[in-house]
Amino acid sequence: MVPHLVPRQLVRLFRWQVVCARGASVQPRTWALASRIPSLLSPCGATGTRHLVCRSSSSTSPCAPEVVLTQERYPVTRLPFSVVSEEDLAAFERIIPGRVVTDPEVLEASNVDWLRTVRGGGKVLLRPRTSQEVAHILRYCHERNLAVNPQGGNTGMVGGSVPVFDEIILSTAQMNQVISFHSVSGILVCQAGCVLEELSRYVEERGFVMPLDLGAKGSCHIGGNVATNAGGLRFLRYGSLHGTVLGLEVVLADGTILNCLTSLRKDNTGYDLKQLFIGSEGTLGVITAVSIQCPPKPTAVNVAFVGCPGFAEVLQTFSSCRGLLGEILSAYEFLDAECMRLVTHHLRLTSPVQESPFYVLIETSGSRAEHDAEKLSDFLEQVLSSGLVTDGTLATDQMKLKALWALRERISEALSQDGYVYKYDLSLPTERLYDLVPDLRARLGSRAKHVVGYGHLGDGNLHLNVTSEAFSPSLLDALEPYVYEWTARQRGSVSAEHGLGFRKRGVLSYSKPPEALRLMQQLKALLDPQGILNPYKTLPAQA
Amino acid sequence: MVPHLVPRQLVRLFRWQVVCARGASVQPRTWALASRIPSLLSPCGATGTRHLVCRSSSSTSPCAPEVVLTQERYPVTRLPFSVVSEEDLAAFERIIPGRVVTDPEVLEASNVDWLRTVRGGGKVLLRPRTSQEVAHILRYCHERNLAVNPQGGNTGMVGGSVPVFDEIILSTAQMNQVISFHSVSGILVCQAGCVLEELSRYVEERGFVMPLDLGAKGSCHIGGNVATNAGGLRFLRYGSLHGTVLGLEVVLADGTILNCLTSLRKDNTGYDLKQLFIGSEGTLGVITAVSIQCPPKPTAVNVAFVGCPGFAEVLQTFSSCRGLLGEILSAYEFLDAECMRLVTHHLRLTSPVQESPFYVLIETSGSRAEHDAEKLSDFLEQVLSSGLVTDGTLATDQMKLKALWALRERISEALSQDGYVYKYDLSLPTERLYDLVPDLRARLGSRAKHVVGYGHLGDGNLHLNVTSEAFSPSLLDALEPYVYEWTARQRGSVSAEHGLGFRKRGVLSYSKPPEALRLMQQLKALLDPQGILNPYKTLPAQA
Repeated sequence: MVPHLVPRQLVRLFRWQVVCARGASVQPRTWALASRIPSLLSPCGATGTRHLVCRSSSSTSPCAPEVVLTQERYPVTRLPFSVVSEEDLAAFERIIPGRVVTDPEVLEASNVDWLRTVRGGGKVLLRPRTSQEVAHILRYCHERNLAVNPQGGNTGMVGGSVPVFDEIILSTAQMNQVISFHSVSGILVCQAGCVLEELSRYVEERGFVMPLDLGAKGSCHIGGNVATNAGGLRFLRYGSLHGTVLGLEVVLADGTILNCLTSLRKDNTGYDLKQLFIGSEGTLGVITAVSIQCPPKPTAVNVAFVGCPGFAEVLQTFSSCRGLLGEILSAYEFLDAECMRLVTHHLRLTSPVQESPFYVLIETSGSRAEHDAEKLSDFLEQVLSSGLVTDGTLATDQMKLKALWALRERISEALSQDGYVYKYDLSLPTERLYDLVPDLRARLGSRAKHVVGYGHLGDGNLHLNVTSEAFSPSLLDALEPYVYEWTARQRGSVSAEHGLGFRKRGVLSYSKPPEALRLMQQLKALLDPQGILNPYKTLPAQA
Repeated sequence: MVPHLVPRQLVRLFRWQVVCARGASVQPRTWALASRIPSLLSPCGATGTRHLVCRSSSSTSPCAPEVVLTQERYPVTRLPFSVVSEEDLAAFERIIPGRVVTDPEVLEASNVDWLRTVRGGGKVLLRPRTSQEVAHILRYCHERNLAVNPQGGNTGMVGGSVPVFDEIILSTAQMNQVISFHSVSGILVCQAGCVLEELSRYVEERGFVMPLDLGAKGSCHIGGNVATNAGGLRFLRYGSLHGTVLGLEVVLADGTILNCLTSLRKDNTGYDLKQLFIGSEGTLGVITAVSIQCPPKPTAVNVAFVGCPGFAEVLQTFSSCRGLLGEILSAYEFLDAECMRLVTHHLRLTSPVQESPFYVLIETSGSRAEHDAEKLSDFLEQVLSSGLVTDGTLATDQMKLKALWALRERISEALSQDGYVYKYDLSLPTERLYDLVPDLRARLGSRAKHVVGYGHLGDGNLHLNVTSEAFSPSLLDALEPYVYEWTARQRGSVSAEHGLGFRKRGVLSYSKPPEALRLMQQLKALLDPQGILNPYKTLPAQA
């Protein structure tokens, strides 16, 4: 029996409502575990419709299916880049001795994306440690016309982080040093390959937090976060990386090191070049170091998890939140009943509240616990008494906060266990954020196993996911371009935070006019005239 | 007699300490008044050393000196643009009937900058109302090779908003319509010529605030704010325009309308083109409309004005602020004793606290008055009892808040009345923020009338100003490049928030490496191959 919130008295006591009654342990907010155990995420039959062969890699799972080669599944033609030769390998070995990897077993993990939807045929993986080494490598590749696939933690959602053909994989994994941290201003300067979770730990020990947080934090690299302009769970509070990133060091396609690694909050000397590279998915330059503004660590963090009777109430609860929680509101995440069924079924988590059509996770972060508690109490009292919320639970300690967060953060993992997943990451006007979900359920009928909606409501960001037992071209035809056209009619974005990578690059024009696309192509041609940086990504293939 | 703060009891009562005992009225936080009465800002002899002739413009002041033509004072050569002909005027008249201005009296105000340091010889002022009209104008100018000077409220500090020679002045003054406002999300979409203060009023009536505020709010245009990447007084709380601007509509040099006017918080479809134009000072395109995220209006605003015995205490008070005020801290502005002497002497304002080496204005903005009062009270008790602060006063009502803010905001006006002003706007590491001020006092000795330092300490932004009776080339030689070299040694920025415009374009290389400068020049060549947009601005003259 899970006790539920009663206005005022329970909230005042901050009593913990049992969250995980049915054996769910607190999972780390990370995909690192998952990436080590592919079977958790992609059970046999979930992906790879052609070659259901067990992977011969170092995977711990003996039954993970082979992912189909991208060049076989998708209509894409190799561009006329050179092919890596023995002389090239020898040259790389001179630049980074002992860090040129050609072992197919090791290469396998770098050729397949986390979602196991794309697979490249990269034959060499380079592991530089310094920006100078990256510069030498790119200068060489530029001269030799060799294509390069920059790779961080390989946790991207759109196939942007692995080769399409035989691009050289340039990994930032060994560029993982903190360069400086300023204990008064909270400005962190670090190499691009630092893992987000490790940076979080580093700055939290010093009284600050990273301005971004995401499910993949245990594996993703800060350079990759910046290259994809990652949004995530703290966007509502701390905003975009375009505002929090203060400086970047980038190596351009020809090996030029562009040092814009300032540690200043303000700098209006000329064009803000670093902005070009934020969200450019490694197609304009390789980010080698990042300077980022970390906000002070909040001393009090609370999470409320509530049930709402309808989406209109989810929206009204958000308005109420903004008014009563004001500056301490740090996350407002919603999920629908289908999402809850998936996490309870596949991951054996338990809902902490009564069954509801919608659930909302509300996080507050502030500097004074008793003030935050009072604000939250008043808010919960209002939404419970007005019927906007029908049930709720509250957590303040770290373990229990994580357990509540797991209900939201592990939806993606639960979906992966449900079958083949069609993923859409849309920005929409908040009041129409959920409309597409019931619309699609009606449209797809029994062809879909599940159609679910969840996401960052406070940012107008819907994660729309559809599952089926296996990949189905006819289901895909029913989904696309329908979803994109629907989004375009709302003047939404067909990629809110995931980027375009390889798999979405064809849909750019649903959200951007031809003039914008032309200018993007001109910028690409200016910065990377041979197109060697992350080819086949971000921009549509040119006719 | 001005009563002063006593820990706890006075603060708890929020008792108002008389701020303006000696006849100082509450001035609007705007330069609109000043721009109508130039004599207030530039008394006879303050600027323009060559031609001390009364202006024959529509100015209300009969004694304002003529500002020397930029092309006479500075070593600059006109580029080979066409000269506006009668046929051109007729063509413009067809595009914007009745809004082609050639009357020299009217042109005068658009040819001289607010600080009265530069003066162009523009012969025609165009006043389009729509983006399509701007597009037609630019297409025409591009074909005819006519140079164009985009102009907003003409409140810039670096001579970026007026012509250098005879560039056509393209004013956004009649593009002043709100396009849409979303009452739940707070997203405002408006034309570029909307005056900041009017937008503030508009969104405040709807429960939101503009994410930026600056002294020039009564005159400056939002398009100009974005074009200069204005910082201002709310930067500490709401961050950079690179984060809060969601979309832009820009007309490119060839007349192409680039519509990136999205109203979405998140959009990762391709390169974020709008970022290119934020801070580009009208040299890459003309901003015609802006979409901006407005934060909810705080229900409680407090301002404390305190005296500190030294700069070390100013820094420690800031640390204390961050800890105890946390998320409600919205401004931390400092001024030195010289600044206070200038505002009391020239503007007849009165200091509300005992004479101190330094003063700090601390603003809080929150959603719950009693919580904010308690936080502020605890903070003030700590800093008063520890001796970090020696005296202080507090305000909560609107009139008195403005009076305290006037002490900080009107420093620039007081300086203008003190003589010729050498202005520097530097980003520096916070702990060294003030070092240059005493250093310069020693270096300049009696050659300078005053050397003062004030600014946005929370953002690491120092406004360093030096005054002398009249413009002195030898004093300038003592200041430059010394100030820039000093700043470069600290890895600071020689323009934190003012931009480079015409007057600072030569110092870009103190803060940016040659590789960055080269890329900026390439971007300029890509977007404006003939260089017709705001020539002689932002980038150094090419050899």
